[in-house]
Amino acid sequence: MRLLRVGAPGRETPALLDETGRLRDLRGVVDDLDAAFLAAGGLSRLAAVPVDELPVLDSAGLRVGPPLRPGKIVCIGLNYRDHAAETGLPLPVEPVVFLKAPDTVVGPDDAVLIPRGSTKTDWEVELAVVIGRPARYLATAEEALTCVAGYAVANDVSEREFQHERGGQWDKGKSCETFNPFGPWLVTADEIPDPQDLRLRLRVNGVTRQDGTTKNMVFPVAEIVRYLSWFMVLHPGDVINTGTPAGVAMGQPDPKPYLTAGDVVEVEIDGLGRQRQVVAQA
Amino acid sequence: MRLLRVGAPGRETPALLDETGRLRDLRGVVDDLDAAFLAAGGLSRLAAVPVDELPVLDSAGLRVGPPLRPGKIVCIGLNYRDHAAETGLPLPVEPVVFLKAPDTVVGPDDAVLIPRGSTKTDWEVELAVVIGRPARYLATAEEALTCVAGYAVANDVSEREFQHERGGQWDKGKSCETFNPFGPWLVTADEIPDPQDLRLRLRVNGVTRQDGTTKNMVFPVAEIVRYLSWFMVLHPGDVINTGTPAGVAMGQPDPKPYLTAGDVVEVEIDGLGRQRQVVAQA
Repeated sequence: MRLLRVGAPGRETPALLDETGRLRDLRGVVDDLDAAFLAAGGLSRLAAVPVDELPVLDSAGLRVGPPLRPGKIVCIGLNYRDHAAETGLPLPVEPVVFLKAPDTVVGPDDAVLIPRGSTKTDWEVELAVVIGRPARYLATAEEALTCVAGYAVANDVSEREFQHERGGQWDKGKSCETFNPFGPWLVTADEIPDPQDLRLRLRVNGVTRQDGTTKNMVFPVAEIVRYLSWFMVLHPGDVINTGTPAGVAMGQPDPKPYLTAGDVVEVEIDGLGRQRQVVAQA
Repeated sequence: MRLLRVGAPGRETPALLDETGRLRDLRGVVDDLDAAFLAAGGLSRLAAVPVDELPVLDSAGLRVGPPLRPGKIVCIGLNYRDHAAETGLPLPVEPVVFLKAPDTVVGPDDAVLIPRGSTKTDWEVELAVVIGRPARYLATAEEALTCVAGYAVANDVSEREFQHERGGQWDKGKSCETFNPFGPWLVTADEIPDPQDLRLRLRVNGVTRQDGTTKNMVFPVAEIVRYLSWFMVLHPGDVINTGTPAGVAMGQPDPKPYLTAGDVVEVEIDGLGRQRQVVAQA
């Protein structure tokens, strides 16, 4: 299933994209796509609903919001060999973990705001993993995959000066307003037979900046979920941003092409849909 | 006002501690103490309710939960001169910022679990600041204080090996299950005339380990809120753990007295109440 939330910011309602590309209204079937929905086995319940009987929504002019309100967002740093190389940092021997504020999430086509005082706002296409079942001290990577509800596209927008040059931890450059375009869809795990064989692409003003594959992850999705479960409990509705391939602005020669107001960022992952953000000044 | 939430984990209901030390039932007056309550001006509405007319609750055997479900938890590192000295790290020139998963929050007297594989679980008494109004690009520290709904006690439990020796960012040692005892009360800001004149204490098995004052903060509460508002939006219901004074286990001579199962941790801040946690193995 490809699940989404449509409508004005903060007032989105659940919907489903059917096999023919039509939007189906899920109001009356589920309250919202959120932690409570996932924790209550909502995906299994939805899978039993006859899609053809759901009302068709007119998608013209309809805003697409984030497909879920995350509980927490956990991020994995330096998780692609080519990206670690471009940052000049050593390849991690175990996953690099940081958090991102869940309120940074916006819809896939919403504006991305450059923070006031920023000169180094950067992009990062990432495979986002949505947790469907509690993950706590998992023994195996196989068990970890059963905790994954689905996948989505994320842009892990990052301010590099705030992240690296303002003292302390990376989190300072990761949680600015609008810094996590998410969606368009939550694609259920059954539709992604191999999360380690997905192509990720990101373009800025039509120029391809990132073109990678999840084959190049240092730690694959199953290992990330297993590993994290030994440091924190992952709950239904939590999201993991699994790292970005090479091609971020920070990795380019000077003058680095950091984002400026008016730039258009397009983000895409095989089978998970596309995003398009216009960059604006906060 | 001293507000709290009582009852079984996940099913707490709102209550108020009156001037005579009796618990008053807030069910029927407010739905819950949460982001929506604060955002809707719930504190002003509550202040107008005649406390004497509220039903008295029998507190015998009643569990106290966290006084609020936080949206996000932002933490300030190395924010006391004496604690920075004991860690051997330089005094920060601007606030050190990291995040903690909001689902780590437990009640003030709930068990703290030592993660599996941990040998360096440590304590940190902290003044927690609860945000009541959105804080975004604030101009002054004075303006910042108007965004503070109130204060509470927090124990920012930390696993030092996970935090410092496992690669990457501090977050890895900060978000383990049960790692944020919080409460007992949310004390509204009007009852704390000077947040920079509060004594904080923490005892382990009756031995005083931390005895500090918020006078020793490097960055005071108002400056922290103002500063953070330039890197992220603070929303009603967000919580800031403002750093810990000297006396953590990591700062002691070897063998460092890290927590083990059976230890009893007592945490207290002037006017904000007391916590008591029994440590157990996860």
